[in-house]
Amino acid sequence: MDANNQNQLILSPKWLVPVVPKGLVLTDHSLVIEGDSILDILPRNGALAQYPTYTETALPEHVLTAGFINVHGHAAMTLLRGYADDKGLMDWLTHYIWPVENQFINFDYVYDGTSLAIAEMIRGGTTCAIDSYFFPNASADAYSNHGFRAQVCMPIIQFPTNWARDEEEHLHKALQVHNDIKSRPLIHTALAPHAPYTVTDSGFEKIVMYADELEVPIHLHLHETATEVNDAVRENGKRPIARMQELGVISPALQAVHMTQLTADEIELIASNNVSVAHCPDSNLKLASGYCPVPDLMSAGVNVAIGTDGVASNNNLDMSAEMRSAALLAKGLTGIATHVSAADALAMGTINGAKLMGREHELGSLEIGKLADVIAIDLSDPLSQPVHNPISQIVYSTSGDQVSHVWIHGKAKLLDKSFTDLDVEAVLAKAKEWKIRMHL
Amino acid sequence: MDANNQNQLILSPKWLVPVVPKGLVLTDHSLVIEGDSILDILPRNGALAQYPTYTETALPEHVLTAGFINVHGHAAMTLLRGYADDKGLMDWLTHYIWPVENQFINFDYVYDGTSLAIAEMIRGGTTCAIDSYFFPNASADAYSNHGFRAQVCMPIIQFPTNWARDEEEHLHKALQVHNDIKSRPLIHTALAPHAPYTVTDSGFEKIVMYADELEVPIHLHLHETATEVNDAVRENGKRPIARMQELGVISPALQAVHMTQLTADEIELIASNNVSVAHCPDSNLKLASGYCPVPDLMSAGVNVAIGTDGVASNNNLDMSAEMRSAALLAKGLTGIATHVSAADALAMGTINGAKLMGREHELGSLEIGKLADVIAIDLSDPLSQPVHNPISQIVYSTSGDQVSHVWIHGKAKLLDKSFTDLDVEAVLAKAKEWKIRMHL
Repeated sequence: MDANNQNQLILSPKWLVPVVPKGLVLTDHSLVIEGDSILDILPRNGALAQYPTYTETALPEHVLTAGFINVHGHAAMTLLRGYADDKGLMDWLTHYIWPVENQFINFDYVYDGTSLAIAEMIRGGTTCAIDSYFFPNASADAYSNHGFRAQVCMPIIQFPTNWARDEEEHLHKALQVHNDIKSRPLIHTALAPHAPYTVTDSGFEKIVMYADELEVPIHLHLHETATEVNDAVRENGKRPIARMQELGVISPALQAVHMTQLTADEIELIASNNVSVAHCPDSNLKLASGYCPVPDLMSAGVNVAIGTDGVASNNNLDMSAEMRSAALLAKGLTGIATHVSAADALAMGTINGAKLMGREHELGSLEIGKLADVIAIDLSDPLSQPVHNPISQIVYSTSGDQVSHVWIHGKAKLLDKSFTDLDVEAVLAKAKEWKIRMHL
Repeated sequence: MDANNQNQLILSPKWLVPVVPKGLVLTDHSLVIEGDSILDILPRNGALAQYPTYTETALPEHVLTAGFINVHGHAAMTLLRGYADDKGLMDWLTHYIWPVENQFINFDYVYDGTSLAIAEMIRGGTTCAIDSYFFPNASADAYSNHGFRAQVCMPIIQFPTNWARDEEEHLHKALQVHNDIKSRPLIHTALAPHAPYTVTDSGFEKIVMYADELEVPIHLHLHETATEVNDAVRENGKRPIARMQELGVISPALQAVHMTQLTADEIELIASNNVSVAHCPDSNLKLASGYCPVPDLMSAGVNVAIGTDGVASNNNLDMSAEMRSAALLAKGLTGIATHVSAADALAMGTINGAKLMGREHELGSLEIGKLADVIAIDLSDPLSQPVHNPISQIVYSTSGDQVSHVWIHGKAKLLDKSFTDLDVEAVLAKAKEWKIRMHL
């Protein structure tokens, strides 16, 4: 077996941003990959001397950093990109999204939509995604077949869907799929009760019990809009977070998505329970849902990571754009321009996502011994020149289109903007077929 | 002379979005260019029959639309991309931007920085820019030499700059440069008093008089921040807009930039005086300046166009990203998801910019007889598939990186993402030189 087959690589970028420690920029350094992991990070001359048989990739105008972790999305909804925009949430759901989903969702739809999302994510430097959608077995197959790392969430909802007829069947199928996919190399699982208003108390109690037993996270849309909170107060006499606390959902296992409506007491509660927050700035803006108070959460010590949400409310999976929005909104909406620096936003798009998944020991930064989820961004384009500060370029000036190289689990997925093993034409052909069917 | 030399072109995209009328998407149509203008728009078969000697460009996965018009920027500040981020406005200006500008700005700096901006703008589908910076003669030369359409603003400020020592000399040089460049084919001019707090009453009176006499617009930063308004009330006993009204500045000639602090009366005043507003959403967020109340302005009938502002506070010149921000913020900050549709945002990035410049008779949309400032956006990438609605893709899913073809004044500037006549390597080399000098 030659060096290349053993996957022994030296990546030599112009700049290396390891994410941890925050703000550090190394120059003239190389990252060494062996198998699926980061073996070393050291000055390039040392790397060439110490690992003479390894294959070097020169990245002379590039910044190398950790792959982005997209902590909230519904990947298969990529097939609904631009299907309905500029609508209020309930109009959007009831008149556009749910009808088309009811008509079309099945295993193939989810597999094809997830494959399109994977193509887009690799292209834009995302190496790990949290995905919550029906037919999670289809999503899991797409991630496994394309060699993409994911936390596949099992959706649980009390209403009938194309996947299951009620809360009990959703839970039953969730446990079944968890069992089927849990040992796949790149796949993690989670239980995903849809939202406080679509899952019963007894459903939450079972989910808490199973999550604890199976040692998987709970992924939950929570306090997404003021309407959700107001309706709950009217119906149950308490805010959803209070109800979740009573049901045992507020714990370090919780990945709380959106969180646009938070009192100081609630922030304190989630901070003291080590709940992580999945912030989806563009989706919250587009659906006019409200704004997650990120600077307040950060001050309280809450781990905040970034998700794009589904493409139907974004309308892309570009984590660069999402990190930028997170940084800009935190400044604009507080009136304090020092909030959420470029380095903070990059951490939110990488290591904080790993923390949210409980996997910061192996993901989210370029550190020796971690899994080799690594991306290179080409800063030679006019839109990212000159380079005073490569971290600023990653967050503020580039989009996902400047991502040139992607390695997941040590394996090259994108080289010089070309997919190594994903048949993008086939993926796009399927997406076009679904679109045509929707408009027949 | 063959057909190609006469610039007789047929552009045949998959989708044609003329911008006017708003929301229209034509399929199987071609746009015919003759010389510098749009000669015809008609079904493709008809175009091939009627113009058999014209050269056809097939754009099979593309949407063709009007070139973007960026209505506010300081192009040469592109050299300061990422130089200082995450700072409050006064800290940013006094400790970072002004010192480096004082040290470096001269004719060559402005020419080189503007050239970099032109490369970035062409690359991202912008075909016309409003630019306000020192040494406007250098900017004008860059625009002329690169064949890029611009409104070059003559900056007037009472403080000494590297270009002129006081308000009087700025005004004197402004008139001189206006005279030197006003007859160039792609160049328009304007007078640009910097802001109410940096120009005297007598300066504004002279500017109003000259603008009227020369028939040029007045381009002014106005009500950018609450501090500006509060300081003015303390110092002059009135808000800047009231002072501008007394000095005759509030008129159809005014291009009012930022406008984040507006009372209902002020909105009524600028509506009834046909003042156009240059909305810079990303810069306002990044510097935590406030938010321009776009939906209220639109309801009042005010023409709102979009600018990126300078790269030092953005940090790019991507009008796609800026249109997206304009649409998302209008929803998120009002809580009404129907505000600023994709078609509205596209109008703000094109025809509304032409209106702001007083040039909607010849720019800003694909209409027969208008100047041929035309772009094609390639929607074949995973991030813009499938295509349910190409206008949604332009605003919400693509970035400037999907722009593949650009024609300005009928002349091809970008073909399949390659520059036709701009020496991008030379432009980038100059940018890198300036960056090195700044860090010596």
